[in-house]
Amino acid sequence: MHTLTVELAERSYPIYIGSGLLGRDDLLLPHIRGQQVLIVSNDVVAPLYLDRLKAMLPGKHCDVIVLPDGEHTKTLETLNLIFDQLLLHRHERGTTLIALGGGVTGDMAGFAAAIYQRGVDFIQIPTTLLSQVDSSVGGKTGVNHALGKNMIGAFYQPQCVLADINVLNSLPTRELHAGLAEVIKYGLLGNSAFFSWLEANIDALMGRDADKLAYAVRICCEEKARIVAADEREGGLRALLNLGHTFGHAIEAAMGYGTWLHGEAVGAGMVMAADLSHRIGWLNAVDARRARALIERAGLPVAPPSSMTADQFLNLMSVDKKVQSGRIRFVLLRSIGNAVLESGIAPALLDETLTAGNTLCL
Amino acid sequence: MHTLTVELAERSYPIYIGSGLLGRDDLLLPHIRGQQVLIVSNDVVAPLYLDRLKAMLPGKHCDVIVLPDGEHTKTLETLNLIFDQLLLHRHERGTTLIALGGGVTGDMAGFAAAIYQRGVDFIQIPTTLLSQVDSSVGGKTGVNHALGKNMIGAFYQPQCVLADINVLNSLPTRELHAGLAEVIKYGLLGNSAFFSWLEANIDALMGRDADKLAYAVRICCEEKARIVAADEREGGLRALLNLGHTFGHAIEAAMGYGTWLHGEAVGAGMVMAADLSHRIGWLNAVDARRARALIERAGLPVAPPSSMTADQFLNLMSVDKKVQSGRIRFVLLRSIGNAVLESGIAPALLDETLTAGNTLCL
Repeated sequence: MHTLTVELAERSYPIYIGSGLLGRDDLLLPHIRGQQVLIVSNDVVAPLYLDRLKAMLPGKHCDVIVLPDGEHTKTLETLNLIFDQLLLHRHERGTTLIALGGGVTGDMAGFAAAIYQRGVDFIQIPTTLLSQVDSSVGGKTGVNHALGKNMIGAFYQPQCVLADINVLNSLPTRELHAGLAEVIKYGLLGNSAFFSWLEANIDALMGRDADKLAYAVRICCEEKARIVAADEREGGLRALLNLGHTFGHAIEAAMGYGTWLHGEAVGAGMVMAADLSHRIGWLNAVDARRARALIERAGLPVAPPSSMTADQFLNLMSVDKKVQSGRIRFVLLRSIGNAVLESGIAPALLDETLTAGNTLCL
Repeated sequence: MHTLTVELAERSYPIYIGSGLLGRDDLLLPHIRGQQVLIVSNDVVAPLYLDRLKAMLPGKHCDVIVLPDGEHTKTLETLNLIFDQLLLHRHERGTTLIALGGGVTGDMAGFAAAIYQRGVDFIQIPTTLLSQVDSSVGGKTGVNHALGKNMIGAFYQPQCVLADINVLNSLPTRELHAGLAEVIKYGLLGNSAFFSWLEANIDALMGRDADKLAYAVRICCEEKARIVAADEREGGLRALLNLGHTFGHAIEAAMGYGTWLHGEAVGAGMVMAADLSHRIGWLNAVDARRARALIERAGLPVAPPSSMTADQFLNLMSVDKKVQSGRIRFVLLRSIGNAVLESGIAPALLDETLTAGNTLCL
């Protein structure tokens, strides 16, 4: 097992990464200060792991809420179901919420913890590759609004994160691939050596090699923890984590949340970002093709939905949180491992990327 | 005009108190950093003061949402109307929300600002006595849940507060009295000299003497700012501000939010707290009667609704946020101006207070 500490002064917390952690009461219990616990899970994960988690909480008063799975459930209405449960069972300020599930479960449980009685403790047990590498670090919590993704939320840190690599064995293949999109993102945006490691090991990761997965999760968490520690509330550096997300969020919104998985949209979005980086003269053609090739090998789409028009992209991207004074800020690549924020993109070049379809990066 | 600074390190902010401040662009504009503003008001206050506020924002892109008035509207559903407006008009992270209204408007606009895009700026322009003395200081924002008041919320500080004493001239008498409940609270809990001043000046305050009102608002804000600065997130000291509120919240919940005004419930709640303080041997009979007398002179109820039973009180008080490990914590008085937290109350004495009705403190 590896322990990584996210350094945020009095809000610092450990991430435990390893095989078989679901069962390690000794790791979990020291982070629960009261007697009350609410486990927030979803209807896919709960049948597999809920009993194992409950067995780790001897002597605690343990309530459970099982939510329907999927990005389309990440709403204020679903959040209110968590509050109903907390209040019905009279959970006090000293209670702890435990998120057992993927990114959607973690985002909602974390946000519920952030605003229940103006803030109670929570613990993340991410059960997807995407949530292990990404949403467990950084304290972003929240829900979607019909007019925009993640528009309502809070920065809120967990007491600890338990990333059990074994649970990835039950992950559907499509979600494994979607998780690899975020893994690749960390190589692309700030660690070219890790990108090369991924080129050499992508097949092992696709085959769920536990040691390789644990290594990848650890490196991604370290990369993200480093960035978040330097910029907890997204002043600048942290915005680099949105590589591929400006395009990706537009794809998710256009197709209806949940039609494309978040990681799939980010996969195509990163190819678009690489393509645009090449068109403005930053990323060379060889590296743009390397980016596309690795994303393709990870089983991810390398072009946006053919039904989407450039106007649709521009319209959806202009409501994204990354907009400042009406100008869209993109995360683009100078080279593999070196991402930069840029808001002065020539509209003609952007239009080329938005209409390139299957010829992105080629 | 008086300027009071609430000292909270990088979240410090000024409260401006005086007559005719609605019209002082020079005070407001330095606290608005972007071009976008959303004014959140209600259907009682907007017809009176909205135009005057808009005239203070030359050159800003100014949207408005007017919500129905009343405590029963303080819900997640109403909050979502604010988000609809923000997203429809594409408000970005640099936007500023301005609350123009009483405590309900301020609580909702502040909470909306706290969680829109994980936090944007907001400014309070409180238009009731209650919100000027109380909800403008301390950063508590939030909404109610069907099972409990203020159960969903955040600690979030405004950029500034503009307390214009002139707007109190349009306040309905019943709301003026409700506001005086919170004014009296600050005398009772920590400032016996101010309590004596109130005994001498309550009639002038009831007659809306502008100078006396400005003085009272200022002292209350100073008292609260002192307490909040020492305990921003309610570790201990800050809980004293809940004098009368444990009983009061139960009354509000039992009668249905908005049936009794918050200040009315707190008025009766403070008489109950004084009564219980006397029964356990802390507050002497003379001071208990002084507390009751001043609250009565302020036009407030000095007994709970006759329809409420002791069981109803106990049941509702046990879901309050002030509960720890199932024990109800009360704010009680050792003397006028000296409040203390106490959770070890003998059930028999509590029962006497809960059933005393019109004989409280007598």
